[in-house]
Amino acid sequence: MLKRFFPIFDWLSTYKKEYLPGDLFAGLTVGIMLIPQGMAYAMIAGLPPIFGLYASLIPQVIYAIMGTSRQLAVGPVAMDSLLVASGLGALSLSGIDEYVSMAIFLALFMGAIQLFLGVLRMGFLVNFLSKPVISGFTSAAAIIIALSQLKHILGIDIAGGNRIQIVFKNTFDNISDINWCTLCIGLVAIVLIKGIKKVKKTFPAALVVVVLGIVLMYFSGWSTIGVKIMGEIPQGLPKFQVPNIEFSRISELLPIAMTLALIAFMEAISVAKAVAEKHTDYELDSNQELIALGTSNIIGSLFQSYPTTGGFSRTAVNEQAGAKTGIAPIISAIIVGLTLLFLTPLFYYLPNAVLAAIIMVAVFGLIDVKYPMQLLKSRKDEFALLLITFLITLTVGIKEGIILGVLISLIVVIYRTSKPHMAVLGRIEGTNYFKNINRFNTNDKEREDVLIVRFDAQLFFGNKDYFKKRLQKHILRKGLSLRTIILNAEAINYIDSSATHMLMQLIDELKAKKIRLIIAGAIGPTRDIIFSSGMIDKIGLNNLFVRTYEAMDELDGKEEKTKIQEKISQQTKSAV
Amino acid sequence: MLKRFFPIFDWLSTYKKEYLPGDLFAGLTVGIMLIPQGMAYAMIAGLPPIFGLYASLIPQVIYAIMGTSRQLAVGPVAMDSLLVASGLGALSLSGIDEYVSMAIFLALFMGAIQLFLGVLRMGFLVNFLSKPVISGFTSAAAIIIALSQLKHILGIDIAGGNRIQIVFKNTFDNISDINWCTLCIGLVAIVLIKGIKKVKKTFPAALVVVVLGIVLMYFSGWSTIGVKIMGEIPQGLPKFQVPNIEFSRISELLPIAMTLALIAFMEAISVAKAVAEKHTDYELDSNQELIALGTSNIIGSLFQSYPTTGGFSRTAVNEQAGAKTGIAPIISAIIVGLTLLFLTPLFYYLPNAVLAAIIMVAVFGLIDVKYPMQLLKSRKDEFALLLITFLITLTVGIKEGIILGVLISLIVVIYRTSKPHMAVLGRIEGTNYFKNINRFNTNDKEREDVLIVRFDAQLFFGNKDYFKKRLQKHILRKGLSLRTIILNAEAINYIDSSATHMLMQLIDELKAKKIRLIIAGAIGPTRDIIFSSGMIDKIGLNNLFVRTYEAMDELDGKEEKTKIQEKISQQTKSAV
Repeated sequence: MLKRFFPIFDWLSTYKKEYLPGDLFAGLTVGIMLIPQGMAYAMIAGLPPIFGLYASLIPQVIYAIMGTSRQLAVGPVAMDSLLVASGLGALSLSGIDEYVSMAIFLALFMGAIQLFLGVLRMGFLVNFLSKPVISGFTSAAAIIIALSQLKHILGIDIAGGNRIQIVFKNTFDNISDINWCTLCIGLVAIVLIKGIKKVKKTFPAALVVVVLGIVLMYFSGWSTIGVKIMGEIPQGLPKFQVPNIEFSRISELLPIAMTLALIAFMEAISVAKAVAEKHTDYELDSNQELIALGTSNIIGSLFQSYPTTGGFSRTAVNEQAGAKTGIAPIISAIIVGLTLLFLTPLFYYLPNAVLAAIIMVAVFGLIDVKYPMQLLKSRKDEFALLLITFLITLTVGIKEGIILGVLISLIVVIYRTSKPHMAVLGRIEGTNYFKNINRFNTNDKEREDVLIVRFDAQLFFGNKDYFKKRLQKHILRKGLSLRTIILNAEAINYIDSSATHMLMQLIDELKAKKIRLIIAGAIGPTRDIIFSSGMIDKIGLNNLFVRTYEAMDELDGKEEKTKIQEKISQQTKSAV
Repeated sequence: MLKRFFPIFDWLSTYKKEYLPGDLFAGLTVGIMLIPQGMAYAMIAGLPPIFGLYASLIPQVIYAIMGTSRQLAVGPVAMDSLLVASGLGALSLSGIDEYVSMAIFLALFMGAIQLFLGVLRMGFLVNFLSKPVISGFTSAAAIIIALSQLKHILGIDIAGGNRIQIVFKNTFDNISDINWCTLCIGLVAIVLIKGIKKVKKTFPAALVVVVLGIVLMYFSGWSTIGVKIMGEIPQGLPKFQVPNIEFSRISELLPIAMTLALIAFMEAISVAKAVAEKHTDYELDSNQELIALGTSNIIGSLFQSYPTTGGFSRTAVNEQAGAKTGIAPIISAIIVGLTLLFLTPLFYYLPNAVLAAIIMVAVFGLIDVKYPMQLLKSRKDEFALLLITFLITLTVGIKEGIILGVLISLIVVIYRTSKPHMAVLGRIEGTNYFKNINRFNTNDKEREDVLIVRFDAQLFFGNKDYFKKRLQKHILRKGLSLRTIILNAEAINYIDSSATHMLMQLIDELKAKKIRLIIAGAIGPTRDIIFSSGMIDKIGLNNLFVRTYEAMDELDGKEEKTKIQEKISQQTKSAV
């Protein structure tokens, strides 16, 4: 029990000495990465940079204790920060102090939702995010995040907005105010990071440009000609403080907190899964992940942390640098803690444009072109889904994009089950196979007195009318000589009450026309429903068969149903 | 083409003389019913009674020309009227004139939506309303409608509200103001209608109580002691008038118009279907129904009609009275027209309580107790769905009830496909049947080197992880001696791109463990996907089989795959 909720007891008791070098190196690398990234992401969220460091401290320690992934790096991430900014930007707040306390309360709120969902074992919810939706959404969000940094790179004021057309319009309206020094710093920083990454991937390129940027600003004095710098950053660890907001705000924050809780979880679980596939020494538990991430956010919020989750880039670095257990994030947290205690004055001269450059490089890596191209070739429908999610996220909004994407993919699934494949079967000459007559050029023509159909989906309220309509068309086509219908039910995996009702009615109608209905190949759960719903009294035990050819043989008087066939065709749960 | 969009040309050209008596009698009966009903429903909608008569005039004539049902009686109905009242009640309007013009505009708006959906062939949408949801919603709406008439029966003022708890509270707050004469009239009217209906079902009981009510009020003079009467009703046909409202109102009205369009369509199509089952001389086309109902509302709105649709009660009466074609509603419309021209002064003394009594009797007939009881016995899950829809409609709102009901039923369907049935199969001794080892006490134990599983649903983004997880558990259970996995794919009716990706990865992983994956019994559409997605290169042609036992026979070296088996197992659309 203890191990289930605190997996640390699991790996700490079996910790091996040879893990330590990897954990140490990974912890140091991620810790150093976190300092500029944390400040940069806080900027995306519209918060003072120090809050990015606060968010890099407590949550990852809690996750190290409770999480089931041993490489996931928890902390501030770009997507969450953007959601915070777009969510809080829409409210009317009195000033930066209220903004900060709302952001911290959001961490508590989303954490509580995640914990709640985890306890209720709702981790399966994340299954409803299909790959095309995630891909379209991530690419669009990356573009929006990059655009949100344009103002820092160009050194101009661009009014907020998360829609691409508005950002472009506002940018062009102010294009004449560009600060060329700022733009230079930004572009050089981008080129440098890209260059360093090309030479050696695990090198802390961000840290290099941060140091260079600080040195440049310190000596050049450009801050007097409009190049924006960080300015004073408070020293010391975050204080313990219960987040408090007006009670009336809770209903306003609920939709933002829900979106954050789900999207943050999705991001964390998908990267954790990708990494877990390379490691065989542990298994992910998506419900425990919800609990761990939720608790990280709740406890984090008590120490001034804004919403956090497991991020793509740092987790990848953590894994590549050799992290084996939760020791690595604890080391990272120590690095961040030391920085907060002693090093914040060093960042006084850090130009904003450098942080913006770090963000831009990071998120452009998230834009996926290969996968959409692949879909365009083989699955036009799923490509369309990706494109719609992408365009709505870009032009309408972040929340709208993900919600509509999920809704559309669910509707597609439902639509597919509402008009499923239905085939007329015929015997392939000289065999016991009954196959779709439209696919197989069977010489054996369809018999006039028998109609064999296979229905390839569950029978439920969404397709019962479709089933009946299609069946009636076939009956009409066959004309008056039709005596028997064999329904091959191998692919019918469920029958709900609406469909049961329809089937009973159908059997009565067929009986009036003196047509016999045979059900062949019903699987266990379907047999259970046929018996428990009382449908069996309408169908009759003698009309259940295991295989289509056995029904045909009996019809033709060739062979009787054997005892064993009878037993199998009538087996149900209650009968065992 | 003409006949498709104007089915009147279809039946008018083949009109038989023997249809006429039925059509005439039905038209007269429904016309006489319409007069009190129309006025009563207008009252539910919060409109002056005359608008109920206007709505009974043009729409049913248009439907007679364009509809595919030959018995559906179109006009004002209780549910739509309630939706109009609850939708417009939530807006801040300047007075009754604006209220009326908004209601008429709603008819235009919902008609346009229906026409649009019909042209796009979206009639299948109505399939998503499952029986439990419809039943729970209808019963709750009937109760809400009946409660909305309480104020007329009690003769007191009850502030609006569509939630049962608010109506009860407001009623008890004003209970001391009851007008006992009004209450008497109402109760007597209810008993009378019930009594007459018991004796003879098709007798226009409503008309009788209307006449009695008018006579009573004329001679008693009770209108001076607070019994409310209709008062002056304008004479003459509705004028042609294009509905106009402020453009800015459109976005406010959109959700109401959408709900109206869909619920009205649902009501009409379900009653039309029920009636069509008794008649073999025509077929319903749900898309043409959308077009016909939409056009009825659009043209109706140009002649001051508020939202209309095909109603339950009048359609039943129309059919029982012998209506065979659209001649019947044309007769009804003439009756209503004559009333508007000459008879409106007669209704001056009609007490409101009588109309309220007519409504109450009508809607209590819609409350369904039998069906929920039946579900409670055999399908607890669907009963819960019905109950939730019922309670939300009663206590939260009409719109919320239907929307949540539909959403929950879709989620249930998705949930079912996200964790489908998966069985481990074993050979039943001495046969070629492979069945669920947990259902059949096969003596033949599961073999150590072969794992046979059947997965009973489409493989898609929502269940691919579930599939993999379950399969891996079985693989782990089998241990190192496992050499072959046979996936019985008979019930897998689709594989989407996310699942394809998962399968390809899985095959690679299995190959690394030297485990062979065989797919047996894939149906046509699945074979198409296996080939077109390139999955076949990973699987290998030799690993496709038609039946599980054939794969086993080959594994055991008993029998080679025959030419015909090979051909069937590899058949795809492109290959034919």
